[in-house]
Amino acid sequence: MFNFSFHNPTRIIFGREQMTQLSNLVKPFQKVLLIYGGGSIKNNGVYQQVTAALTESSFIEFSGVEPNPSFETLMRAADIVRREKIDFILAVGGGSVIDGAKFVAAAALFNGDAWDILAKGAKITEAVPLGCVLTLPATGTESNGNSVVTRYETQEKLAFSSPLVYPQFAILDPTVTYSLPPKQAANGVVDAFVHVMEQYLTYPVNAPVQDRFAEGLLLTLIEEGPKVIADPENYEVRANVMWAATMALNGLIGQGVPQDWATHMIGHEITALYGLDHAQTLAIVLPALMQQQRQQKRAKLLQYGQRVWQLQHQDEERLIDEAISHTRHFFERMGVPTRLTDYGLNAEVVDKLVEKLVQHKMVKLGEHGDITPEVSRSILQQAL
Amino acid sequence: MFNFSFHNPTRIIFGREQMTQLSNLVKPFQKVLLIYGGGSIKNNGVYQQVTAALTESSFIEFSGVEPNPSFETLMRAADIVRREKIDFILAVGGGSVIDGAKFVAAAALFNGDAWDILAKGAKITEAVPLGCVLTLPATGTESNGNSVVTRYETQEKLAFSSPLVYPQFAILDPTVTYSLPPKQAANGVVDAFVHVMEQYLTYPVNAPVQDRFAEGLLLTLIEEGPKVIADPENYEVRANVMWAATMALNGLIGQGVPQDWATHMIGHEITALYGLDHAQTLAIVLPALMQQQRQQKRAKLLQYGQRVWQLQHQDEERLIDEAISHTRHFFERMGVPTRLTDYGLNAEVVDKLVEKLVQHKMVKLGEHGDITPEVSRSILQQAL
Repeated sequence: MFNFSFHNPTRIIFGREQMTQLSNLVKPFQKVLLIYGGGSIKNNGVYQQVTAALTESSFIEFSGVEPNPSFETLMRAADIVRREKIDFILAVGGGSVIDGAKFVAAAALFNGDAWDILAKGAKITEAVPLGCVLTLPATGTESNGNSVVTRYETQEKLAFSSPLVYPQFAILDPTVTYSLPPKQAANGVVDAFVHVMEQYLTYPVNAPVQDRFAEGLLLTLIEEGPKVIADPENYEVRANVMWAATMALNGLIGQGVPQDWATHMIGHEITALYGLDHAQTLAIVLPALMQQQRQQKRAKLLQYGQRVWQLQHQDEERLIDEAISHTRHFFERMGVPTRLTDYGLNAEVVDKLVEKLVQHKMVKLGEHGDITPEVSRSILQQAL
Repeated sequence: MFNFSFHNPTRIIFGREQMTQLSNLVKPFQKVLLIYGGGSIKNNGVYQQVTAALTESSFIEFSGVEPNPSFETLMRAADIVRREKIDFILAVGGGSVIDGAKFVAAAALFNGDAWDILAKGAKITEAVPLGCVLTLPATGTESNGNSVVTRYETQEKLAFSSPLVYPQFAILDPTVTYSLPPKQAANGVVDAFVHVMEQYLTYPVNAPVQDRFAEGLLLTLIEEGPKVIADPENYEVRANVMWAATMALNGLIGQGVPQDWATHMIGHEITALYGLDHAQTLAIVLPALMQQQRQQKRAKLLQYGQRVWQLQHQDEERLIDEAISHTRHFFERMGVPTRLTDYGLNAEVVDKLVEKLVQHKMVKLGEHGDITPEVSRSILQQAL
């Protein structure tokens, strides 16, 4: 196990009717920016619950944060934060809204061009405190310091991280996810699954707690994920998926172990250039990457096949083949196709995507730093 | 899954040579109370490392916190905190020292008789901030708000909990555990194992993440525990046990699920009256309690036998019998006997222990509140 330092200050408030706690949580603040996306929270009752809980607070609304939140939109929100002397940001929505709120929290107090936070890794020294009400279990952003933002102008999708943008609290009420469109719910399951894999499917460092926690999350998502589609108002299923998705990327399972994240980095380029959903890109890249990196990830692929898919073949190559194909079939069972061509993208996209990776200095990806642009090209070709 | 609210603010700093971070961690404070137990930290080099890191801080030492820390000793420390205007407490040691430091942190600022915090559950509204350097993985106290204190005068061992006494940080360097006496190391493994069981072996509430995390910790302790004795300077083994013990009682695996804690409550009385080590009492009570509560815990006992001990019998009674006997043998393999008579205690202690349980209002224990004094008596009789 590697050395690590772990601190996750987010308070998780989980369960039915937990929105009622919002009033007390925001009470210490003078002026709240309520930030959300499109109208879905108005249709599913969440907007009404949130605003009812805020009646004793002074708040301003900012709506219109896009899926893959845009730098341009978020900078408008940051201006409002400054102008209106906002001292707390409440994000209500899925990963895009919460990621967006984190960037707003940092950009509003940043001295200089806020684009540098994303493009140059400029360090932030302060941020407006924020909290969130999660409506779509997927990214884990409700309980971590990560944010991904897209600049539409230049089609760039970039990330930043800071301990200053952990939400102070995250309200997770599984019932608010009942009305999610099946495609979004399925994408969330795939996203959470791949988050676990990026922290698990590397090489062994004798970290059995982390491995078993990761395997426990993968098994939970495999068992519960398809039920989300089949039985959307099953509270227990929604609760288990929601908790698994938070635990998948709140930092815990990644402590003291190598991490990969190449699937995400390659996937971000697909979203930026061709607009595919984040989870779709992960479902495309991961199986191809597992195949391409099967030697480097050999020991963990065998462990994954045995413990997660209960495969028992003597023939190790066959076991790895089946572990990969089970993964692919799981994504497809969730309704998320796993080939570039399934989305109308063909061989000519490969060069363009590799070019973008080079442009963003994504030239030594993976837990060994050995996923060079040539290896990424090969992964993308296998993903056709 | 039940509703829950989870917040664990402790920063975990884990690994080799992490003591060097101590200097920065205590820098914000004016005057530190360094609190520890006997001389072991002077023999294993930890005292030297800690005081070397504190050279730029003003600190006072308080030593002599007992195993099963005494109210009497801790009140002397609380007096020093008040008198010397201590603004940070640094606990260096195992569970007893850290539990003791938490009580000192609360008692020093308590208005009234501090014994009420333990005896009457008097609520504390403030506490001196504290941090810790853990030398014995066992209780999980390095990252939770719990504390157990004994009043020697009356032989009472009582607990309190408060979010105000979570350590701000916990330094976990597995190398400092190399020199632990084998008995203490073994006790720590048993203690951590039973912490997991108290949060796991109840009844199913469809919480697969929590179940699999618990099973992952149990499996890790079963695999790594005996190696601690056989190969005491194996870093990976010490690291895995240390991380498992912290995760066992930092609150995470118990969120949203029923909990038992009867084994602990009955065990505390054995320690208070007869001075047995905490872990010894757990090793005595748990197998007897599993036997006594086998109907109430049936579904979870089967799951435990299958997933943790890989038992596959068709005959469910036999499977449960073997799950219990594997548990007992695991404790014995760790060198911790599992019968009262192994410690020279015979049938006449049973009445005295039950009387103490009644006196402390421990009359509806267990996840169903159905472990009455009569059931506790039966458990103790089976533990002879």
